[in-house]
Amino acid sequence: MDIATIGGIIGGIALVLFGIIAGGVGVGPYMDSGSALIVVGGTFSAFFVAYPLSRALSIGRVLSKIMGNSSNPVGEVIKIIMDLANVARKEGLLALEEAVTDVNDPFMKKGVTLIVDGTDPELVKTILETELEHEAVRHNQGKGMFDTLGSIAPAFGMIGTLIGLIAMLKNLDDPSTIGPSMAVALITTFYGSLMANLLFIPMAKKLEIKSADEALIKEVMIEGLLSIQAGENPRIIEEKLRVFLSPKVRKEVGTEEEVREEGEADG
Amino acid sequence: MDIATIGGIIGGIALVLFGIIAGGVGVGPYMDSGSALIVVGGTFSAFFVAYPLSRALSIGRVLSKIMGNSSNPVGEVIKIIMDLANVARKEGLLALEEAVTDVNDPFMKKGVTLIVDGTDPELVKTILETELEHEAVRHNQGKGMFDTLGSIAPAFGMIGTLIGLIAMLKNLDDPSTIGPSMAVALITTFYGSLMANLLFIPMAKKLEIKSADEALIKEVMIEGLLSIQAGENPRIIEEKLRVFLSPKVRKEVGTEEEVREEGEADG
Amino acid sequence: MDIATIGGIIGGIALVLFGIIAGGVGVGPYMDSGSALIVVGGTFSAFFVAYPLSRALSIGRVLSKIMGNSSNPVGEVIKIIMDLANVARKEGLLALEEAVTDVNDPFMKKGVTLIVDGTDPELVKTILETELEHEAVRHNQGKGMFDTLGSIAPAFGMIGTLIGLIAMLKNLDDPSTIGPSMAVALITTFYGSLMANLLFIPMAKKLEIKSADEALIKEVMIEGLLSIQAGENPRIIEEKLRVFLSPKVRKEVGTEEEVREEGEADG
Amino acid sequence: MDIATIGGIIGGIALVLFGIIAGGVGVGPYMDSGSALIVVGGTFSAFFVAYPLSRALSIGRVLSKIMGNSSNPVGEVIKIIMDLANVARKEGLLALEEAVTDVNDPFMKKGVTLIVDGTDPELVKTILETELEHEAVRHNQGKGMFDTLGSIAPAFGMIGTLIGLIAMLKNLDDPSTIGPSMAVALITTFYGSLMANLLFIPMAKKLEIKSADEALIKEVMIEGLLSIQAGENPRIIEEKLRVFLSPKVRKEVGTEEEVREEGEADG
Amino acid sequence: MDIATIGGIIGGIALVLFGIIAGGVGVGPYMDSGSALIVVGGTFSAFFVAYPLSRALSIGRVLSKIMGNSSNPVGEVIKIIMDLANVARKEGLLALEEAVTDVNDPFMKKGVTLIVDGTDPELVKTILETELEHEAVRHNQGKGMFDTLGSIAPAFGMIGTLIGLIAMLKNLDDPSTIGPSMAVALITTFYGSLMANLLFIPMAKKLEIKSADEALIKEVMIEGLLSIQAGENPRIIEEKLRVFLSPKVRKEVGTEEEVREEGEADG
Repeated sequence: MDIATIGGIIGGIALVLFGIIAGGVGVGPYMDSGSALIVVGGTFSAFFVAYPLSRALSIGRVLSKIMGNSSNPVGEVIKIIMDLANVARKEGLLALEEAVTDVNDPFMKKGVTLIVDGTDPELVKTILETELEHEAVRHNQGKGMFDTLGSIAPAFGMIGTLIGLIAMLKNLDDPSTIGPSMAVALITTFYGSLMANLLFIPMAKKLEIKSADEALIKEVMIEGLLSIQAGENPRIIEEKLRVFLSPKVRKEVGTEEEVREEGEADG
Repeated sequence: MDIATIGGIIGGIALVLFGIIAGGVGVGPYMDSGSALIVVGGTFSAFFVAYPLSRALSIGRVLSKIMGNSSNPVGEVIKIIMDLANVARKEGLLALEEAVTDVNDPFMKKGVTLIVDGTDPELVKTILETELEHEAVRHNQGKGMFDTLGSIAPAFGMIGTLIGLIAMLKNLDDPSTIGPSMAVALITTFYGSLMANLLFIPMAKKLEIKSADEALIKEVMIEGLLSIQAGENPRIIEEKLRVFLSPKVRKEVGTEEEVREEGEADG
Repeated sequence: MDIATIGGIIGGIALVLFGIIAGGVGVGPYMDSGSALIVVGGTFSAFFVAYPLSRALSIGRVLSKIMGNSSNPVGEVIKIIMDLANVARKEGLLALEEAVTDVNDPFMKKGVTLIVDGTDPELVKTILETELEHEAVRHNQGKGMFDTLGSIAPAFGMIGTLIGLIAMLKNLDDPSTIGPSMAVALITTFYGSLMANLLFIPMAKKLEIKSADEALIKEVMIEGLLSIQAGENPRIIEEKLRVFLSPKVRKEVGTEEEVREEGEADG
Repeated sequence: MDIATIGGIIGGIALVLFGIIAGGVGVGPYMDSGSALIVVGGTFSAFFVAYPLSRALSIGRVLSKIMGNSSNPVGEVIKIIMDLANVARKEGLLALEEAVTDVNDPFMKKGVTLIVDGTDPELVKTILETELEHEAVRHNQGKGMFDTLGSIAPAFGMIGTLIGLIAMLKNLDDPSTIGPSMAVALITTFYGSLMANLLFIPMAKKLEIKSADEALIKEVMIEGLLSIQAGENPRIIEEKLRVFLSPKVRKEVGTEEEVREEGEADG
Repeated sequence: MDIATIGGIIGGIALVLFGIIAGGVGVGPYMDSGSALIVVGGTFSAFFVAYPLSRALSIGRVLSKIMGNSSNPVGEVIKIIMDLANVARKEGLLALEEAVTDVNDPFMKKGVTLIVDGTDPELVKTILETELEHEAVRHNQGKGMFDTLGSIAPAFGMIGTLIGLIAMLKNLDDPSTIGPSMAVALITTFYGSLMANLLFIPMAKKLEIKSADEALIKEVMIEGLLSIQAGENPRIIEEKLRVFLSPKVRKEVGTEEEVREEGEADG
C-alpha cells in the first residue's frame, strides 16, 4: 500500500473541507449530487469514447498499481544479481537454476531460465529487451488513461457550469436567486478541477515514476544477467551495476539504510 | 461495432440532458439552430482550410474505423503464426501457401506469399516494415484530423460567443433582454466544448489506441514470419512472440478467456 | 488552385456573417477599422520581430503554396518510375536520358541525370536524401510562420481588448456608453480569434500535409531510382513501391479513379 | 543591424499608441510606473531565480545577436568553398593556408588549419561537428532565456492585476473609484502581454531562426571541407553543396540577386 | 550559495510588497493564513499523490542543489585534464594515481582509477557514460518535481477561489460583504500564481541548467580521460576539448577572467 497516495488524497480533501468550513456557509452548498453526476459521469462517458471497452475496464488494475507498493530498491536487486554471479562463477551457469528458486521476480526467473537452457546470448538480450520495451508501452498506456481523465474532468466541469449559467441567465426575474444559481453552476467547475488536480494528474505522474523505477530495475537485471552469461568477473559486474545507483545510495550500500533511502531523486 | 464509443456518446448526452433538465428551464433554451450552425459550420470550414479536399472527405472512413471493431487479439494472431510455423517445420515453406488460405488478414497473406516466392529475407523485412511504417503514418494523419477538429470547435464556440456578446453590449437599452441574450451567446461555447470533449478529442484518442494495437499485431506478424522463413524452432518462435503479450494474458493463453482479456493496459 | 482552402475560408466567413446578422444589430458594429489595424498590424509587427526580413517577405510564396494545387498522386509517380524501370531493363541505364525528357519533375530529372552520368550509387543516395531533408526543413520553416501568426493574432486581439477596457473603465461617468465601449473592446479579440482559427492555424496544418505528401513522393522517387540503378527486377521494384500506397488506392491502381482517390488518410 | 526587428518593435508600439489615442482617454491612463515596476521587476526577479548569475548577465550578448546582422548567405559560403576546392585541386592542400587568409570566418579558418596540419579526416570531422553541436546547445540556451521571459511576463502581469483587484474589492465604499482602480489593475496585464508578444516571444523565434541559418552554413562548411580534404572533384563538391540551397536560390546562383534572396523559406 | 536565486526571490517579494503598499489598503488584506494553508497544503497533498514517499521527501536535497553553488567552470576542468594528460605522457598512466589525489571530483577520480587499474577502454567508456546518463535521469526527475509543483499550485489557487466564490454567492444578502469576500477568494489565486511563477517554475529551470552544465563537464571529462588512456598527443586533446568552450571563453583561456566568464550562453 502506497502511504503517500492515500495520505495525499486524505490531506487534500481535509484541506478543502477546512477551506469550505472557513467560508462560513457550511459544507451543504458544496455538495450537489447532480453536479457530481454530470462531472463524473461526463468524464467517464468521454473516457469510454476514448478507450476500447476491455482497456477502459482495466482501469481498476492500473489504479491498484498506483496505490500499491513500490518495486524493490535497486540496491537489493544488485545484491541478488551479485549472489547469482558468485554462484555462476563458482559452480557454473547450470547451478543458477537452483539459486533462482528463492527469487520471486518473474522477469529475473525468466532470464535465468533462458541462460540455464543455453539460449544464445543475442536471443536472451532480444527477448528480455523486447519484454522491457513492451511493458513500458503498456505502462505508458495506463498513464495515458489518467492523463485523459485529468484533461477531460475540468472540461466537463466547465460544461456543467455553462449549463448552469445558461439556465440562470434565462431566468433573471428573481434577483435573489442569481447568486445561489451561479454558486450551483460553479460547483461542477470546482469538482472537475479538484478531481483533475488532486487525483487524476498526480496519479498519472505516480504511475510514470513507478514505471520508470521498474524499467530501471529490469535494465539492471538485463545488464547483470548478460554479464553473468558472458562469464564476467563479479567485481566488474558490480562496478557496472553500481552506476545505476544514485551517489547517495552508493555510499550506503551494505548498511541497513540502503533499502529505505534508495530511489531518491537527488543528484 | 465498438460498443464503448456508442455507449460513451449516448451516456454523455444523457448526462448533459439530465443536467439541463435539472436546471429547471427546460431543454428549449439550449437548442439553437443558429448557434449550432456557427459552431459546426465554422469548425468544418476551418477543417477544409486545413485539409486537402480528398483527405478531408475521407473523414467518414476514419470515423468508421473509430466506430468499428477492434482488431484481433494478439493471442489469436500468435496461435495462427504458431500453426504456420509448425506447418513450415514439417512440410517446408512451400506448404505455407495452402495453410494461409484460411487466414483473412491481407498483411499476413502478403508476407506468406513473399516467403513462398522465395524472396530474399532482407527484402521481405524491408517490404513489411515499410508497409507497417506507412500505415502508421496514415493512421496518424487520421488522428490528426480529429485533433484538429477538437481544437477548432471550442475556438469557434468562443467566436460565436463573442459575436453574441458584442450584439448584446451594443443593445443594452432594455435590461430585461441582457440575460437571455447572454444565455444565447454562451450556447456556442457550450456546443463547442461538448463537441470537442465528448466527441473529437476522445475519438482521436481511440484511433490512436486502435492504431497502436494494429501496429503491435503487425510487428508480431513480421517477427513471426521472419522467424519462420529463417527456419527457427517453433518453441523459440513462441518464446519470442509471447513477450508481446501482457503478463496477465500470458498466464491465460490456452484458455477461453484469453481472447476477451487480451489487449488490456495492465502492467 | 486548392478549392478546399478557398471554399473553407468563404464558408467560414459566410457563417460568421450569418451569426452576426442573426444577432440583430447588423454588420456595422462588427466593422471597426481601428480594431482591425491594431490586430493585423500588431500581429505583423511581431511577425517582423520574429523573422528576418528576407524570410518574412517570402510569406507570399508560402501562401501561394498553401493555396496552390496538391502534388501528383503517388500512384502516378509509381507508374512513371515503372516506365523508367522497364526502359532501363530493356535498353540500359543510358536510355533513361531520353525517357526522362517528358517528365517535368525537377527532382526526378536530377536523379536520372545523376544515374546516367554514372554517379556512384552511394553518392546519388546522399545527394537526393540531403535534398529531401533540406526541403523538409524549408517547408517546416514556412509552416512555422503560420504557426507564429496563429499564436500572436489572438494575443494582439487580447491586447486590443485590454486597451479598450482600460479606456472604458477610466471613463465610467456616462453609464450608457459602457456597453458600446465594451463591445468595441471585444472586437479585437473577435478579429484575433477568427484570423487565427479560420486562417493561420488551418493554413499551417495544410502546409504540413502538403509537405508530407511531397516528401512521400520524393521518398518513392529515391527508392525507385536507386532500385533502377541497382538493376533490380521491375516486378520487385513495383512490389517495393506499392507499400507506399494506402490499401484503398492499391486496389484501384490501374483504374481511372486512382488519381482522384489517392492520398486519403484511411487505414 | 537587423532592420526587421527594430521596425517591428517600432511599428507595434506605434499601433498600440494609435489604439490608445483612438480610445479617447489619452496616453496618461496607460502610463503607470508602479505597474511597469511590478511587471518588469517581477519578470526579471523570476529570471534571476531561473538562471545562474553569469548566464543571466549574458542576456545582453544574446540580445545583440538578435538585433545584429544575419549570417552570410549560403550561396556566398559555397562560392568560397569552391574557390578553396579549386586551389586545393591545382596547388595541393598546403596551398589552402594562404588561400584562407582572406576568409574571416573563424570556423572555416579552423577547419582549413586542421586540414593543412594534416589532421586525420575522422578527427577533423569530430572536432568540427562537436563544435557545431555545442554552438547549437549554447544558442538554444539563449533562446530558452527569451522563452522564459515570454512565459513569466504575462504571469507577473496577472499577479499585478490580482494585487490591484484585491485592493479594489477591499475598498468598494466609493463606487466612483471602482472603474479607475480596475483600469489601473488591468495595466499590468496589458504590460505583461505586450512585452511577451511583441518582444520576448518573437525575439526567441528570431534567435531560433538565426541559429538554424548559422548551423546550416557550418554544415555546408564541414561537408565542403571534408570533401576538399578527401580530394573530391570540385564539380561533385558543388553538386553536393547545392542541395543545401533552396530551389529558388539555386536558379539564381551566379547572379547579383543571389545574396539578397538566399535564406528564404520557400519550397 | 547561488546568489541569483536568493536575490531573485527577495527582489520578487519586495516588488510584490511594493505593489501591495501602492494599492493603498495595506499588507493586511493580502495576508490570510487559511488561504495560504489551502494553496500550500493542497499543492503538497497533490505532490504526495504524485510522488512515492521516499522521493517526495528528497525534495529538500533537490532544493539545496538549486540554491547551491554552480559546478566548476569548463575551463578549469580542461586545465586539470591537460595536467593529467601531460603527467601520463611523461610518466605513464600509472603516475595518474598520484596526480589525481588533489582532484576532489568523484567522477574524475573514478575514471582515473579505472584507467590506472588497466580497465578495457570500451568498458571505461561504458561505465562513465552509463553513470552520466543515469545522473541525467535523476536530475530530470528532480526538475520534474518542481515542474509538478509549478502546475499544481495555480490549480489549487483556483480551487481555493472557487470555494470562496461559491460561499460568497450563496450569501449575497449583505451587499457590503461582497467585495471583501471576493477579495479573500482571489487571495488563493494570487498565492498560487506567485508561488508557481516566482519559485517553482524558475527553480525547475535553474535545476535544468545546472544539470546541463554538470553533464557538459562530465562529457569533457569522459572525452579527455579516454583520450589520455588512448595515449593521444596533449595538443590534440586540448584541441578536442576546447570545442566544448564558448568562443568568448576560448579567447580568454589562460587569463584570470576565464573562470568568471565561463558558462555563458552567448554564441
